[in-house]
Amino acid sequence: MKGIAATFLPPIALDYRSKTPLYGQLYEWFRKAIFAGQLRPGQRVPSTRSLATELKVSRIPVLNAYEQLLAEGYFESFVGAGTCVARSIPEDTLIAAARKARRGSPEKAEKRGSRRMSRRGTTLTQLPPQTWLDNLGAFRVSLPALEHFPIKIWSKLVARHSRRPPTGLMAYGRPMGYLPFREVIAEYLGTVRGVRCEPSQILVTTGSQQALQLSAQVLLDPKDQVWIEEPGYPSARHAFMTAGAQVIPVRVDHDGMDVAEVIRRGRDARVVYVTPSHQYPMGMTMSATRRMLLLNWAARAGVWIIEDDYDSEYRFGTRPIASLQGMDSDERVIYVGTFSKVLFPALRLGYVAVPKDLVPAFSAARDSADVFSSTLYQAVATDFIREGHFARHIRRMRMLYMERRTELVKAIDSQMGDTLEVIGTEAGMHLVALLPRGIRDVAISTEAARMGICAMPLSSCYMQPPPRGGFVLGYGGANTHQIHDGISKLRMSLRSARALI
Amino acid sequence: MKGIAATFLPPIALDYRSKTPLYGQLYEWFRKAIFAGQLRPGQRVPSTRSLATELKVSRIPVLNAYEQLLAEGYFESFVGAGTCVARSIPEDTLIAAARKARRGSPEKAEKRGSRRMSRRGTTLTQLPPQTWLDNLGAFRVSLPALEHFPIKIWSKLVARHSRRPPTGLMAYGRPMGYLPFREVIAEYLGTVRGVRCEPSQILVTTGSQQALQLSAQVLLDPKDQVWIEEPGYPSARHAFMTAGAQVIPVRVDHDGMDVAEVIRRGRDARVVYVTPSHQYPMGMTMSATRRMLLLNWAARAGVWIIEDDYDSEYRFGTRPIASLQGMDSDERVIYVGTFSKVLFPALRLGYVAVPKDLVPAFSAARDSADVFSSTLYQAVATDFIREGHFARHIRRMRMLYMERRTELVKAIDSQMGDTLEVIGTEAGMHLVALLPRGIRDVAISTEAARMGICAMPLSSCYMQPPPRGGFVLGYGGANTHQIHDGISKLRMSLRSARALI
Repeated sequence: MKGIAATFLPPIALDYRSKTPLYGQLYEWFRKAIFAGQLRPGQRVPSTRSLATELKVSRIPVLNAYEQLLAEGYFESFVGAGTCVARSIPEDTLIAAARKARRGSPEKAEKRGSRRMSRRGTTLTQLPPQTWLDNLGAFRVSLPALEHFPIKIWSKLVARHSRRPPTGLMAYGRPMGYLPFREVIAEYLGTVRGVRCEPSQILVTTGSQQALQLSAQVLLDPKDQVWIEEPGYPSARHAFMTAGAQVIPVRVDHDGMDVAEVIRRGRDARVVYVTPSHQYPMGMTMSATRRMLLLNWAARAGVWIIEDDYDSEYRFGTRPIASLQGMDSDERVIYVGTFSKVLFPALRLGYVAVPKDLVPAFSAARDSADVFSSTLYQAVATDFIREGHFARHIRRMRMLYMERRTELVKAIDSQMGDTLEVIGTEAGMHLVALLPRGIRDVAISTEAARMGICAMPLSSCYMQPPPRGGFVLGYGGANTHQIHDGISKLRMSLRSARALI
Repeated sequence: MKGIAATFLPPIALDYRSKTPLYGQLYEWFRKAIFAGQLRPGQRVPSTRSLATELKVSRIPVLNAYEQLLAEGYFESFVGAGTCVARSIPEDTLIAAARKARRGSPEKAEKRGSRRMSRRGTTLTQLPPQTWLDNLGAFRVSLPALEHFPIKIWSKLVARHSRRPPTGLMAYGRPMGYLPFREVIAEYLGTVRGVRCEPSQILVTTGSQQALQLSAQVLLDPKDQVWIEEPGYPSARHAFMTAGAQVIPVRVDHDGMDVAEVIRRGRDARVVYVTPSHQYPMGMTMSATRRMLLLNWAARAGVWIIEDDYDSEYRFGTRPIASLQGMDSDERVIYVGTFSKVLFPALRLGYVAVPKDLVPAFSAARDSADVFSSTLYQAVATDFIREGHFARHIRRMRMLYMERRTELVKAIDSQMGDTLEVIGTEAGMHLVALLPRGIRDVAISTEAARMGICAMPLSSCYMQPPPRGGFVLGYGGANTHQIHDGISKLRMSLRSARALI
């Protein structure tokens, strides 16, 4: 066999005290030498015997290294003709790599392929930065009172299921979720939310966001129209955008989404996304009349409705408003909920109640998205609900959040009463405080984020310019001290932001 | 105010022993009566006082029920003029609902809107059924030896993090993942797989499937071309299909994917998906020459490479093959891996190492997909790796899987040696057993599934008609007894399936 003589092999330095075994060092040395162009395709390498002698090592590490290099195709060998660097290795790669290595940095002048992402990838990176989400300080929307979570009970249940888990809890689970958990969810939703569904219609998700993304995939083709509330839930908008859908905002008034407007202009609507129990972020309830108009129209027009019932557990005046899904006699409503707010966010468990004919598609979409939800927490949450801890926790939190809401309103009144106007019904875990006309909210929120306060600007919930700025202030995760301290920091942020303008 | 007199109120039956409180029963009764058309829009309802007297109950439940019905917009009231059913409720809804309720079933003759899903939703439901995935019996691909998982150590770590979790572990986490876990992953990949990346480039996912779906979203627009191996990993194909991409199969030979073919025909390729360490399902390693050709071409042509390194931890002959990502000097490779196979599937933890310029898009895509991964298991896995349990477990499993592989080959030889031909290198957790030409695999797999055996048909890994049928047989989760029993059941399935033809 022909080849360049092996005599020109550059020096090999082995480190006998290194954690990397000798064969590994040899393997790496050859790989690098090939990449750097120091060893060329077709170049003959020494026999294992002579290299071992030369390096004064046993022949075994050399044999192992050569075997690996042969297995990976860096070397080739011919019976009776020794071993050489594989002749099939493309020289230009090596030369380019070597040149790049020598110059130390990538060469911009060299012809280099595009680094284009998908359109949706680009759109996603162009979303404005949300610095107020960088901390978990006062007013973080949707953050529950973690310090009041019954962690002792919970961790006992975790230990119970974790110590000697049946194989089923460790192996692959079903895309639709762990059956006992789905039964418990269906029962809970039927009793408390008037949702009409069987356990077979419940898909367990990693939270409401995944439920929205799966709904978008199953229901929307690129450029299809989805109609959403304005102002509305920004993350829902992102989920629909990721599916390539066309998102159309519809103003809300004191009765919720302007359904008449949707019916008038929505001839090409495929999906309507609503938060009828507690409009996000403004807090009103959709009137019974609008609910019926919406359902009636959707059934005739062949439009799907996604009902996001994100925090209906907490209502301080009247009892919880029944769900839209429960009024739907045409199976048009995809009902979305989450345990992030009633248990804790890092749990990553939510659910979607799906019309019967959509179950196979949702199940396949979940399988193709991320197969199934981690089973341990599904089993733990099942027991937590069945044993009554869930109902007890919700009752306690309802009292606590009512107090926290009162405290927040008091703090705003006393410290910023001349600037902020509180709106929203007595429900949920956040309220909206409006700024006077003409004052923009984003700069103030950015300033507040610097002080560790998470005051989400109301304008981030709008697609179009908002009539008034303001803040969406969560009170679930902030105690009395944090509430008053937070409002005083928000007041300072307002001052310094206005000084900057 | 005008309205029909209240005298025609249908009888109200209250159940005093029911768990539903009286106000709830009254509320439900009114809601149903309105839906059923028994109470019409504008119809006056009795005063709370007179209804309480009539029903012989305290006035409080009646007041509560009315308050709720007013709040939800079923009733309206006028000062001095009493309360009536809201006049804005659309009559046609009620009549339609009532008619439907009376007839007991939905009327197909009535004009009913379309129930069309998205194209990808429809495609997903048209995937052929995979009955062999309905059980966790012998030969389930990717299932590890759960009975050998060090569950005691693991559950101690779970308890450690679960008992008194810092707030950060219960609140909202980062889309990219829990930082200590990302550091540990980057270090592990660098040492064991030759992956070159910083912790900032690691995105923690709920498994490799989510990594594939996110990659598809960030890199592929609808109709964009992605080139995959034929045969290849079916779930990767599903992830790309869900993104609306055009999936193009390229044959593999003994050196892996035919890269020359991709270069020749792939002028419009945007992404190439490969399993270079251990081709799925055939098991060969991509040669060094092809790796360099692929990287070199991708850099020039502006093509992204997704490297799925799904089971590289297990290699029984030579040491693990270094990753393609580590050879890539142009940051073209998106490197995907998972803990499902080395720890356990229900854990739902995987990762993707992302080129630096794609990090913001991947992070935003994850945020919009399902926000972040459950934090508890990330913290537990961090300790499990740091404290050396992970390395020890992998070493033990490597020995065990080597034995199980030998056992499976022996079982096939002795029971089906005349029918099945084993191929694939000595690595991973599965092997391929080919059927003689002309025998189809799906019917046999379906038959085997009925006996509780999970023998994935090789043809399900093909997009085009396969040259030969066969089975992808996982040996990770099956002990000696299950292996021999499984092969004897597979032999019976083969007989009865052939008898059926």
